[in-house]
Amino acid sequence: MAKIAVLGYGTVGSGVAEVLDVNGACVEDSAGEKIEIKYILDLRDFPGDKHESQVVHDFDVILNDPEIEVVCETMGGIEPAFTFEKKALESGKSVCTSNKELVAAHGPELVELAKKNNVSYLFEASVGGGIPVLRSMNDSIRHERLDSITGILNGTTNYILTKMDQEGADFDAVLKVAQDKGYAERNPEADIEGHDACRKTAILASIMSGQFVKHDDIYTEGITKITGEDFEYARELNMAIKLLGSCKREDGKFFAMVAPFLIPFDNSLSMVNGVFNAIDVHGNMLGDVMYYGKGAGKKATASAVVADVIDIVRHKGKHIDWNLRNVPAEVAPINDDIRNFFVRCDASAETGAKELFGDVKQVKSDKVSGEFAFITPEMTEKDFKEKYEKLRGVRSYLRLL
Amino acid sequence: MAKIAVLGYGTVGSGVAEVLDVNGACVEDSAGEKIEIKYILDLRDFPGDKHESQVVHDFDVILNDPEIEVVCETMGGIEPAFTFEKKALESGKSVCTSNKELVAAHGPELVELAKKNNVSYLFEASVGGGIPVLRSMNDSIRHERLDSITGILNGTTNYILTKMDQEGADFDAVLKVAQDKGYAERNPEADIEGHDACRKTAILASIMSGQFVKHDDIYTEGITKITGEDFEYARELNMAIKLLGSCKREDGKFFAMVAPFLIPFDNSLSMVNGVFNAIDVHGNMLGDVMYYGKGAGKKATASAVVADVIDIVRHKGKHIDWNLRNVPAEVAPINDDIRNFFVRCDASAETGAKELFGDVKQVKSDKVSGEFAFITPEMTEKDFKEKYEKLRGVRSYLRLL
Repeated sequence: MAKIAVLGYGTVGSGVAEVLDVNGACVEDSAGEKIEIKYILDLRDFPGDKHESQVVHDFDVILNDPEIEVVCETMGGIEPAFTFEKKALESGKSVCTSNKELVAAHGPELVELAKKNNVSYLFEASVGGGIPVLRSMNDSIRHERLDSITGILNGTTNYILTKMDQEGADFDAVLKVAQDKGYAERNPEADIEGHDACRKTAILASIMSGQFVKHDDIYTEGITKITGEDFEYARELNMAIKLLGSCKREDGKFFAMVAPFLIPFDNSLSMVNGVFNAIDVHGNMLGDVMYYGKGAGKKATASAVVADVIDIVRHKGKHIDWNLRNVPAEVAPINDDIRNFFVRCDASAETGAKELFGDVKQVKSDKVSGEFAFITPEMTEKDFKEKYEKLRGVRSYLRLL
Repeated sequence: MAKIAVLGYGTVGSGVAEVLDVNGACVEDSAGEKIEIKYILDLRDFPGDKHESQVVHDFDVILNDPEIEVVCETMGGIEPAFTFEKKALESGKSVCTSNKELVAAHGPELVELAKKNNVSYLFEASVGGGIPVLRSMNDSIRHERLDSITGILNGTTNYILTKMDQEGADFDAVLKVAQDKGYAERNPEADIEGHDACRKTAILASIMSGQFVKHDDIYTEGITKITGEDFEYARELNMAIKLLGSCKREDGKFFAMVAPFLIPFDNSLSMVNGVFNAIDVHGNMLGDVMYYGKGAGKKATASAVVADVIDIVRHKGKHIDWNLRNVPAEVAPINDDIRNFFVRCDASAETGAKELFGDVKQVKSDKVSGEFAFITPEMTEKDFKEKYEKLRGVRSYLRLL
């Protein structure tokens, strides 16, 4: 019997209790022993709740109980979660968490602290919700030299982009529907400006590089400037528009960014629709492997937290190792990154565009008039931005994957 | 330093050597120690090969060397692979293999033998080539109650179906091109009749049910009867045609089968094209998770074998447990399975079809004439077959996922 504590009885925390209640027998089979919640830390009481009697308000009760082997931190936010996790690890308890904000900010430090105390720090649920991608990266493909990781990491923005594409609706209208349905927050900034995807990209980039990639070092653009016309052009190009978190190794440099991209239909990521997430990992021997599933949701996310608990229980007394050191990774400036760009400008700017960008490929759509739209040759971001700023009558641009 | 032996220096076996050579540092990081090939068993010599000096012709050299901790069986076929694997396990050596034929025939027995000898038996590469699905099922989602597993498990047939769809070409022509390109064997029966997909389905079904699902108990249909007209209708239905291996739990029964299916475009499996494989697993808490990647190929498959070696080295002295007992699983007769069917018959059979099948939904294509095509209401396979046999002028049928 392994006894655990859950910090925070909100959506994910109560989901962890539900997974353990409903799938108790399967959990026991997988872990090799029963797993029981002894404490739930929350500021609130939950009168009438099945787990009412486990609720405590003082973290020290958990910290000072030597029976507690694993602490599941499902509170979210940096503090007090960070302090609680550190104290738990220092007192010889393993920690698993769904807290992407904290993992992005302090993950490598917490992994090292776990190692020092011969316990484990796992965070499967912090990226891709229920998708079992992080453990697979650590257990099944860690011997691959990874060239790139490219992911649709935020369900809210993917839902919005999918609806804009399928219904020809504009951004604001779709956002409102998403908010009414509960797919988007009332304050949607973290999603639509790409901050949430950036956190998850930082976690993936750190695991890929083996060093700490700070989210502040990741160039991030959201989806608020995407319009219905962009999708008209995308269809002409046989491409989808998706918000991607991307990291890649190219010419000895390590790049990481978050931005909306045009993706060819023959790339599987282009087919990931609605609230689903997917992460494509490219290894030097393996080629592409893609993991797909629900990127959020109470039960799916909680199931990933429980998977971490089980992994820890299976490896009792042993540190589960990550290739992740708490030293800053060198992220190459986005200006050095090379790709094609899709540009829309006034029809009158056609000559100027051709003079500036050289051999461009025009893109036409019956549904859009008064514009000249084109794809640039491959060029650096720096070169592109300089030319884009010089071009008169520019309207918008998108990157091509 | 862990020393291993590779049995069979063919495509996969030489790939294992290549992965260990090229990715040696990553392998060492992942395993926690260096991994070295001490012996390669093959009937042939390989003069001039980098690993020439490791080649031996007598399995007993490997068996009697206490330094060998892991045996990678990459020979294929039942014998002598089965005897070699048993002897290795009995002498306290762990075994990993890409041999789907053997795993499908004797996997549960070999898992039990490994357990008895406190060593491990792993077979990631036997399903989906390089896709890390089996370890993920055992490590990350074993605590889920799985409702279904549905997979595109054979790259050759998926390549053929994709080409038929995209190019409007007929089966025989595409098969010939696939053979010329080396995507299909000169004797393609194992692929096109579904036998290979059946082996992989048997392995997945065994892991899902926790018991031995024999491939002989899995109803299997191949793709040889699919025509260009079927794809015309499929497009009208917004569906793809894919050869699926499927197992599911429904009404307390466990079903397993291999057959070509019509799959709606909004199901991600419909988008898996060419030689790629994908496996969708549905858990009670997690919902759908899909794993996608190269289902075959030297380096991808070898990478999965190396992942197994690493897992074994990480868990030295410990049996890696599967929820898989060597007792026969009860597979429900396909006759009890319920679904919709797509039927094509002569135009003159319309009245008869409506009388027999009741409320059918007609499917029309501009490109096909002289036919009446329709989708039946949901019905059991038994009911369907009885009616289909009674209908005059029937041409073909397909199942709907």
